[in-house]
Amino acid sequence: MSYTAPIAEMGFLADLLGQPRLAATARFAEATAETRQAILGEAGRLAGELLAPLNAAGDRHPARLENGVVRCPPGYAEGYRAIAEGGWIGLVAGPEHGGMALPQSFAVMVNEMLAGACLSLSLCPLMSQGQIEALEAHASDELKARFLPPLIEGRWTGTMNLSEPQAGSDVGALTTRAEPNPDGSHAITGQKVWISWGDHDVAENIVHLVLARLPDAPAGTKGISLFAVPKFLPTPEGAPGRRNAVQTVSLEEKLGLHGSPTCVLAYEGATGWMVGGPNRGLAAMFTMMNNARLGVGVEGLAVAEAATQRAVAYALERRQGTTPDGSAAIAGHADVRRMLFTMRGLTAAARAICYDCALSIDLAKAAETEAERAAHAARAAALTPIAKAFGTDTGIEVAGLGIQVHGGVGYVEETGAAQLLRDVRVTAIYEGTNGIQAMDLVGRKLSLDGGAAVGALIGEAEATAAALAAAGEAALGAALADAAAAAREATAWMLAAGAINDRFAGATPYLKMMALLLGGHHLARAALAEPGRRPLAAFFLMQLLPRARAEAAAAVQGAGPLYALPAEALGA
Amino acid sequence: MSYTAPIAEMGFLADLLGQPRLAATARFAEATAETRQAILGEAGRLAGELLAPLNAAGDRHPARLENGVVRCPPGYAEGYRAIAEGGWIGLVAGPEHGGMALPQSFAVMVNEMLAGACLSLSLCPLMSQGQIEALEAHASDELKARFLPPLIEGRWTGTMNLSEPQAGSDVGALTTRAEPNPDGSHAITGQKVWISWGDHDVAENIVHLVLARLPDAPAGTKGISLFAVPKFLPTPEGAPGRRNAVQTVSLEEKLGLHGSPTCVLAYEGATGWMVGGPNRGLAAMFTMMNNARLGVGVEGLAVAEAATQRAVAYALERRQGTTPDGSAAIAGHADVRRMLFTMRGLTAAARAICYDCALSIDLAKAAETEAERAAHAARAAALTPIAKAFGTDTGIEVAGLGIQVHGGVGYVEETGAAQLLRDVRVTAIYEGTNGIQAMDLVGRKLSLDGGAAVGALIGEAEATAAALAAAGEAALGAALADAAAAAREATAWMLAAGAINDRFAGATPYLKMMALLLGGHHLARAALAEPGRRPLAAFFLMQLLPRARAEAAAAVQGAGPLYALPAEALGA
Repeated sequence: MSYTAPIAEMGFLADLLGQPRLAATARFAEATAETRQAILGEAGRLAGELLAPLNAAGDRHPARLENGVVRCPPGYAEGYRAIAEGGWIGLVAGPEHGGMALPQSFAVMVNEMLAGACLSLSLCPLMSQGQIEALEAHASDELKARFLPPLIEGRWTGTMNLSEPQAGSDVGALTTRAEPNPDGSHAITGQKVWISWGDHDVAENIVHLVLARLPDAPAGTKGISLFAVPKFLPTPEGAPGRRNAVQTVSLEEKLGLHGSPTCVLAYEGATGWMVGGPNRGLAAMFTMMNNARLGVGVEGLAVAEAATQRAVAYALERRQGTTPDGSAAIAGHADVRRMLFTMRGLTAAARAICYDCALSIDLAKAAETEAERAAHAARAAALTPIAKAFGTDTGIEVAGLGIQVHGGVGYVEETGAAQLLRDVRVTAIYEGTNGIQAMDLVGRKLSLDGGAAVGALIGEAEATAAALAAAGEAALGAALADAAAAAREATAWMLAAGAINDRFAGATPYLKMMALLLGGHHLARAALAEPGRRPLAAFFLMQLLPRARAEAAAAVQGAGPLYALPAEALGA
Repeated sequence: MSYTAPIAEMGFLADLLGQPRLAATARFAEATAETRQAILGEAGRLAGELLAPLNAAGDRHPARLENGVVRCPPGYAEGYRAIAEGGWIGLVAGPEHGGMALPQSFAVMVNEMLAGACLSLSLCPLMSQGQIEALEAHASDELKARFLPPLIEGRWTGTMNLSEPQAGSDVGALTTRAEPNPDGSHAITGQKVWISWGDHDVAENIVHLVLARLPDAPAGTKGISLFAVPKFLPTPEGAPGRRNAVQTVSLEEKLGLHGSPTCVLAYEGATGWMVGGPNRGLAAMFTMMNNARLGVGVEGLAVAEAATQRAVAYALERRQGTTPDGSAAIAGHADVRRMLFTMRGLTAAARAICYDCALSIDLAKAAETEAERAAHAARAAALTPIAKAFGTDTGIEVAGLGIQVHGGVGYVEETGAAQLLRDVRVTAIYEGTNGIQAMDLVGRKLSLDGGAAVGALIGEAEATAAALAAAGEAALGAALADAAAAAREATAWMLAAGAINDRFAGATPYLKMMALLLGGHHLARAALAEPGRRPLAAFFLMQLLPRARAEAAAAVQGAGPLYALPAEALGA
């Protein structure tokens, strides 16, 4: 299946968002546009030439469990090795243990390429990146020295172990135990589920980051600690040694992502080392989860890009009927064009939101004053749930449209269009369901600063609306201004809502409204910068953005209407 | 997998829509409410007890081709036999050959139950019903006598053969040939694709209705004739005799509907008999396709019902976190409730539109004057594409929400939530893609009567808006009136649009707008009739219906914006 990394598009967007500011900071002085384009070229080649061909194979030959060992699809080991050897896993990691210390803004681009080419395989290095980040922030120097070099080199991979059968979205309900050993390590016992790449045969060792409770831990989320539990215990020389007491019980049979082994892991007194302090595990995990959420949003947008590319290629090739523009291909039909414009418009909007979020993360890291840091961090915090939920919703919607553009053959597995939908569907669920993202936005994020960060984002869109009007684009400016006004009203309503559940009741439409507004803002800015981009922006502003007002209306109804019936009355 | 036929809901809706009017006509005097409820009870038992348990098995054990013969999943033959023995295949067929001559309004309810329980199996009798209708309308008395009794009894099944590899949505491009035989039959040669239930082992014979060209036929759609081609040629006694020259070349490996064999059929001089006159095949096929389109809309709504039932049951059972209403189950969370309300609201809207369409079909059949007949027929004609596209879009959206309500386990195949999405996805494609439905609505249907039928439908919604206001429901009335006003404006724009491609460019959003408006209208009428239904109507009108204005805005932009870029610019 072909995939072409959209290098030019990425570069244009990075410049539009102001990514070059990074190279002017001390922290990211090396992150120049030249370095970026060199990296994109290299990663794009890897994605298009080596990884994309693996995607169908991974679907056809699912990862399987044989005598307690997971066997990955053909070609995955070579693909993984190429990712590791390219240095892509340690792109943002610190130089102390072999990382390149480049900005997150570069990593999201590279990760988009890997995910667009072969989502199931790309999850493996993505899990490692999250773990590297968590260890850098919270592990002792000894643990860092032991685990970071092989993780960054990619000789070892990382996993996240949060969920248990009774503890999914409610992490506080977990019961896995950690008993202190005399040597300072702990013995971990319990069962963990939904462990992506929890076992495999593409690297020599696996480090599990496991949430568990110490014997004297308080109940709920305040009594959770974090442990690094390797599959093979490291020898004093740092090589994989004796097998640890963690077993793969089973693999999930999933709708998609067949190439990515999703494991049930059983820990039976497995040796682990605490990361961060006792009962501080959730804080450590959440540091990493914020970036992981952005990473999942990027997965969604990556699949949207892949689906759009394929749909356009098919629509240009498939001939059916006579078309109004005289072209023989179905891309000439207005309704097919509507689908292609929608796919491209949503994908562009999601990409801009995700990259913008990454840039704020980087600017916060590079800030020289606390005020500056806090402002960028608050902006990133507000954008993160939007990037995650809108990126993944976009992946699902665009992959669905991709099937529709293909017509009957889109429903046949051989085409690959259906696989994209099957693969991307879970991204709206894992790393915090999209409903949880929306609740985070209207709950925690709006409350943190009284809506200042969100208000500033709306203000950016208002400025773009004014710029459109000033450029003679009255209709487009009015459309964007109207969506911004709707967002102002809905935000004021949220901030005034007394009960948090009134906010939660409107959380999902509120998040969609914000995403459409920001997407329109970015597309409009692109059009102002480059006239050839006006048609896509105009389509988005005039034909998709009006949904923002509909979402705003739904966002401000409060919880009452949702509890006016018992849930039973909605069922059979 | 459990499925409970929503008998009470169906009965309520039938009465609300005015179905009892049918029993007052000479044609459907036997279609009393008592008969209806007896039928629903019987069919509901069959669906819930016998067919629903087959659904997962059909997915797990796909139909397969062995030595040229298709083998169906375990239990399908028994399930099919029970449908046939219940008399459900001939529910609307005429009494001359064994049918029950009941209204389409009853058939859509029964078909919804069969499809909600096991969509893949239900397609088999649905295909037969379409064929029975086509033969009744167009076949000679001799052909009717030969084919109708075994089709109505269900000893034989029927298929539709339109598509060829190069001729999908563009039926006029087909090349299958029909050469006259000396005995008046024809020799059919060509390859047909996407033949649902094109071969199987659940009944003793199969009759293929095949579109083909006579030797002297004009090019395009005007040169297509229709032929009945049995798998086994009937003996003089009417039993299946010699094997005809039609072979199953392959089965498609599809995203879903694994239990339903989708065949590539090769005809190599197969014996067939012409149905209708030479070059009149497409007209004959279209008679049947209009009802088939309604039937597919019902498939979508059936799956939406099944998905809603399962999601509610799961949300009432799954415990996670603390909920605002004090219930321990996730159904207590506002965002989960939003999903459940959306699922139930969309399902109820789609059902009302589909049943309303069926009722107009019946009233046209039962009309005593031509004026009356024409009015009902025009109403049905306008509703049919809306029923098909909105019913199936709803099936897809609701099944997607069903996965989301399930969270992680929704992504695991064992749960069955994902199967519903995989199965229903094709309904937006077959029987005319939803884009083609939308083009039919704004093109042919609006043009037929200058928008009179659509205008009358909007008028019905306006009357309901007024009734809401009169009942003291000012906010709900205003919401419905606003959507109706948007529909009036968009319809006027469509009728004034000079170029048909300007209409086509807005076709899909226009259809969605109409569906939301009509859905809101029906839910509001239900609430006015029964106060317990107000919460669902209020949710729909205040939180989903605002989308109608956003769709209306997108509907009236014309073709220009969609051709402002070459399609290539949207791709890689």
